Amino acid sequence: MRLEDFVRIIRERNFDGALISPGTNLYYLTGLSIHEAGERLTVLVVSADGDYRLLAPSLYENTIMNFPVTFWRDWENPYDKLAWILAELHLSSGRLLMEDTMRADWLMNVMRLGPFEFYPLSSLVRELRMRKDKHEIEMMGHAAKVADRVFEEILSWDLLGMRERELALKVELALRELSDGISFPPIVASGENAANPHHEPGNRRLRKGDIVILDYGARWKGYCSDITRTIALGKPDGRLVEIYGVVREAQENAFRAVGKGIKAGEVDRAARETTEKAGYGMYFIHRTGHGLGLDVHEEPYIAQNSGTVLENGMTFTIEPGIYIPGIGGVRIEDDVVVEGKGRRLTKAERELIQL
Amino acid sequence: MRLEDFVRIIRERNFDGALISPGTNLYYLTGLSIHEAGERLTVLVVSADGDYRLLAPSLYENTIMNFPVTFWRDWENPYDKLAWILAELHLSSGRLLMEDTMRADWLMNVMRLGPFEFYPLSSLVRELRMRKDKHEIEMMGHAAKVADRVFEEILSWDLLGMRERELALKVELALRELSDGISFPPIVASGENAANPHHEPGNRRLRKGDIVILDYGARWKGYCSDITRTIALGKPDGRLVEIYGVVREAQENAFRAVGKGIKAGEVDRAARETTEKAGYGMYFIHRTGHGLGLDVHEEPYIAQNSGTVLENGMTFTIEPGIYIPGIGGVRIEDDVVVEGKGRRLTKAERELIQL
Repeated sequence: MRLEDFVRIIRERNFDGALISPGTNLYYLTGLSIHEAGERLTVLVVSADGDYRLLAPSLYENTIMNFPVTFWRDWENPYDKLAWILAELHLSSGRLLMEDTMRADWLMNVMRLGPFEFYPLSSLVRELRMRKDKHEIEMMGHAAKVADRVFEEILSWDLLGMRERELALKVELALRELSDGISFPPIVASGENAANPHHEPGNRRLRKGDIVILDYGARWKGYCSDITRTIALGKPDGRLVEIYGVVREAQENAFRAVGKGIKAGEVDRAARETTEKAGYGMYFIHRTGHGLGLDVHEEPYIAQNSGTVLENGMTFTIEPGIYIPGIGGVRIEDDVVVEGKGRRLTKAERELIQL
Repeated sequence: MRLEDFVRIIRERNFDGALISPGTNLYYLTGLSIHEAGERLTVLVVSADGDYRLLAPSLYENTIMNFPVTFWRDWENPYDKLAWILAELHLSSGRLLMEDTMRADWLMNVMRLGPFEFYPLSSLVRELRMRKDKHEIEMMGHAAKVADRVFEEILSWDLLGMRERELALKVELALRELSDGISFPPIVASGENAANPHHEPGNRRLRKGDIVILDYGARWKGYCSDITRTIALGKPDGRLVEIYGVVREAQENAFRAVGKGIKAGEVDRAARETTEKAGYGMYFIHRTGHGLGLDVHEEPYIAQNSGTVLENGMTFTIEPGIYIPGIGGVRIEDDVVVEGKGRRLTKAERELIQL
């Protein structure tokens, strides 16, 4: 269990303890995979002395085994029990690390239990999680391979006339078939909808001349892949072909900028300079990429001004895009691991495919 | 927009403002449907003076229209912009309502912007949301009808030999076909797995003699349904047949206890007394039900000791269950609306079906 390493670090940094709600940090540190706790307080209390105890709703009585746990029943006040555990672990005050994604109402209730100072847990755990070990990179490689294979499948489908949401469903089922599931709901954005980087697949039917952005990923043993390809159905608008070339070049330049000791902001810069030179800088409205691992968005972010220095074992996406309202957009995304230079985990065709 | 009513209430209760992150409260109050904001700060600031402004990542530039909004770019610090908006709205200190499900790291960052006191937003909005209007009950009625129809479909399928996860997928696709989607990932728990109320569908194949818990729901125009039926494949263990009778009776007794002016705790009591008299009290390890609406879990909770007084228009589930480790379990769940007495929205067969 990685909890021992974690305890050593919180002691080094003079924190008194941590409250960790279910999610990828809890899974990473303990191996506990607790789903859908919803509004019922579920939290691992860890002290800098190395003591720890999970507080969980009694709903999980039959599933959480071989772990120090206190259950609370639906008619009990879980914060009374939490106060008790905090006291037992000598944590009635002090500097507490809190899981970033914990519900704010839990944090508001914890505030009332003592004179604590709160700090985001990710500020520590991300240092551990950012550098993937060999096993983690293998799992991510497999998730990426699944994404590649599904792209090949997509190219074999009869896309003309299909609705965006139908295509998104087919992509989801293909991913589920080959992996533990999707890493996020697939995005299918066609025609003008491609101008919105977070478009939700709707009822629009794919038609000749469309440009189609496909953004999806698989999950394998907890680890995510995340790929985007933009394809054309027949001959697209000449402006979109030009944009495709710019995005393709920006993605390649950003990829080539990756290396051990390079700042994440420099990778972003490489992509942004390419779009700016081509006169499309103002249409590249998001960062160049995000870290990838147990979460589909995690550290290191490949964003303007990011001073994070890339190290071996870091994994992230490179996904520049250009979006022009009323016309459409293009995005190309790969998953990359730092091994001296960058190595792409996703390898699907990157040139413009016209179906 | 319901925001005007909300502003009147926060003024009455002496709050200075509210910070509302994306979710069902934001949708309920403004009609804004913003998905998957992830870690990027997205928050509606509302002042007791009635002023409001949304802060959102520039990613949404092409999608959020006709709403007062400030966008921030990936390389900007969104909390600087938030501080500015708070100052403009005369909210640099005071009593702030915070969306309960907001990420804790956002709340931790807001803490540093001024001497605020924080209170959970739900404590106010739930009063509005708990009482559904006619339109809302119609939407929920439709979502419930979809759940009923899918149960009939399930009974027509050849279940023997099917894996739990395959059945869960088929249920999900049937729900998607007839509605806007699922209200939560369907639960299929067969055989011994039925002893775990939150079992995740796995690779176990359904076989003769199994008891199978099916728990799923549809979403319609934002509103949820949530149904559970327990069926048998062939003749189940005699103990499970006995338990089925007890749960069926507990569910009926709880339903009959529903009425305007009745406390939620009394409805829970009616179910619990039935299981206790039959000697199974200790195996009924969760509350009797939960409110249902835009969220699949919301107020009013039908839990032991709940003093919430039921009113017309309140909607919730009634779902007693008995779970015996190593043997299996039974749960029966309906969606109910208070209209003087209770009226069930879900109507699928409640007697034990042996396939």
